[in-house]
Amino acid sequence: MPRNTLSFPSTSATQIEPYLPEPRDLARPLYPHVTLTYATSLDANLSLSPGVQTALSGPQSKAMTHFLRSKHAAILIGAGTAIADDPSLNCRIEGVGGYGGPGLNGQPRPVVLDAKGRWKVNEDNKVIKLAKEGRGLGPWVIGAQDTPPEDGRYKALTEAGGLYITLPTDSRGRFDWGDIFNILGTNGLFSVMVEGGGVVINELLSPRYIGLVDSVIVTIAPVWLGKDGVQVCPEERRNEGGVKMSVGRLKDVRWLPLGEDVVLCGRPGWQ
Amino acid sequence: MPRNTLSFPSTSATQIEPYLPEPRDLARPLYPHVTLTYATSLDANLSLSPGVQTALSGPQSKAMTHFLRSKHAAILIGAGTAIADDPSLNCRIEGVGGYGGPGLNGQPRPVVLDAKGRWKVNEDNKVIKLAKEGRGLGPWVIGAQDTPPEDGRYKALTEAGGLYITLPTDSRGRFDWGDIFNILGTNGLFSVMVEGGGVVINELLSPRYIGLVDSVIVTIAPVWLGKDGVQVCPEERRNEGGVKMSVGRLKDVRWLPLGEDVVLCGRPGWQ
Ligand SMILES: NC(=O)c1ccc[n+]([C@@H]2O[C@H](COP(=O)([O-])OP(=O)(O)OC[C@H]3O[C@@H](n4cnc5c(N)ncnc54)[C@H](OP(=O)(O)O)[C@@H]3O)[C@@H](O)[C@H]2O)c1
Ligand SMILES: NC(=O)c1ccc[n+]([C@@H]2O[C@H](COP(=O)([O-])OP(=O)(O)OC[C@H]3O[C@@H](n4cnc5c(N)ncnc54)[C@H](OP(=O)(O)O)[C@@H]3O)[C@@H](O)[C@H]2O)c1
Repeated sequence: MPRNTLSFPSTSATQIEPYLPEPRDLARPLYPHVTLTYATSLDANLSLSPGVQTALSGPQSKAMTHFLRSKHAAILIGAGTAIADDPSLNCRIEGVGGYGGPGLNGQPRPVVLDAKGRWKVNEDNKVIKLAKEGRGLGPWVIGAQDTPPEDGRYKALTEAGGLYITLPTDSRGRFDWGDIFNILGTNGLFSVMVEGGGVVINELLSPRYIGLVDSVIVTIAPVWLGKDGVQVCPEERRNEGGVKMSVGRLKDVRWLPLGEDVVLCGRPGWQ
Repeated sequence: MPRNTLSFPSTSATQIEPYLPEPRDLARPLYPHVTLTYATSLDANLSLSPGVQTALSGPQSKAMTHFLRSKHAAILIGAGTAIADDPSLNCRIEGVGGYGGPGLNGQPRPVVLDAKGRWKVNEDNKVIKLAKEGRGLGPWVIGAQDTPPEDGRYKALTEAGGLYITLPTDSRGRFDWGDIFNILGTNGLFSVMVEGGGVVINELLSPRYIGLVDSVIVTIAPVWLGKDGVQVCPEERRNEGGVKMSVGRLKDVRWLPLGEDVVLCGRPGWQ
């Protein structure tokens, strides 16, 4: 088993399980269970700045993230995170494929939203290398335009078992989140863990899209990052009289201290 | 006992006690123990906007705040909060003076920072009414200039057993926090609970002042308030090479789930 294999205690896993996707629900076959998850500081920052991967949470929370990945068919990030972090996007929990388990069992499908084709994916990217080593699945990239086979990105992606998918965009160049989850569901991905970054999370927390989210799992680390970081702070919400109100409150809340961090599990309580 | 008397379970109190001031320490007689405390949303907001008092935390966390008040000689806020919220600033935990206990036993001294004399304190303010009813101490206001006895504010304050204190300000019109805590300590207030709001908290979390803070107690509610609220987000910090780094991390961390909220206790781990 690779040295960087992780394990997550079953006592903690039991606490989180009610918030995780059920085995495929045939009554809702084409639409995935959506889990929104991220790690922040006390001042609600995801990172010190857009280009900087920031160590926020401790080793136990990291193991939890990989446990969560093993429970989802797909993990989704925005192009900003793919470009800034060159993330691995695989699952390293003990027992999944490549980490003590057979084949690619339990490995989630990485999905990257990249409407403008900004992510120059190539064979040096970690996610491509891991796929070629049999330690992760090749990523799916959702773009707005077809990527021709002679494009270097197309080659890197398909050689790793990945895929380019296209979706229409609105006038702001954005996909509709209903479309995104639909196309994943119809392609057999019955649960999606959305991991970030800032733009993605703030969009999904907006009144327009929060109804698509089934559960929220947030790790909070006891640190302040300070001004001008990448922050979780959704657009404000006003009632019909123009009065500002809270964006939303979680229900079925559970707090789980984990090392120096705390993990919050809940379900969106607003539509 | 008044109907709005609160109680806080001793099991929770025991968890928080290590972070509270010790009985007066004679080796440090003139300088108070400083506890920084506040309640935020998941997006690090203290309120929806500066003028709006926002219900964030649940009844258990509210009882905890009053328990904390009973353990401190003073509670301190900025003029912004005094003006926006007209806060009560007394302690309503069962057993303190005015709430089942004798005299004003266990009632903290309210302290308001008001360098520019913006807070027009008068007999309609809750803190003044409560003091006159024997349910709280009269507030001390720290200003930059003497308030003459013929000023209506002076009358309202002194009639309630309160006091005007003056301190020098710097070129930005701000008091030095060392001066603030010193003058409270030399006037017999051996522990201070700083309750907010945004300006006060962000100043105390800055590298210049965090060394004055002994413990931090933060309540987090599972709600997002959205953009343009009053936010806890200290000034950014950079190392000598100009590289952004985290403002600071807490040590001796303890997370205490309390109703729907979580309470974080810790000590500043940076200078
Ligand atoms: N702490 C954590 O849990 C965590 C997790 C992940 C990332 N991060 C951090 O977050 C930072 C990156 O965040 P970010 O806000 O810059 O980027 P991001 O949210 O990862 O990506 C944003 C980009 O993704 C594309 N996108 C998002 N939603 C879309 C939609 N509905 N339709 C079409 N395209 C969409 C857009 O690309 P185009 O503009 O090109 O169209 C958008 O600019 C990094 O510093 C990273 O380290 C932290
Ligand atoms: N959720 C919570 O725990 C919590 C707690 C308290 C308050 N709040 C909310 O916070 C909001 C108010 O926050 P805020 O940031 O507007 O105000 P604030 O921090 O309460 O008060 C700021 C003002 O206090 C004075 N001040 C602060 N530090 C000073 C210093 N070192 N020297 C001299 N004067 C100093 C200044 O007055 P001058 O500018 O006049 O000099 C400053 O503008 C309200 O909406 C309230 O509801 C929330």
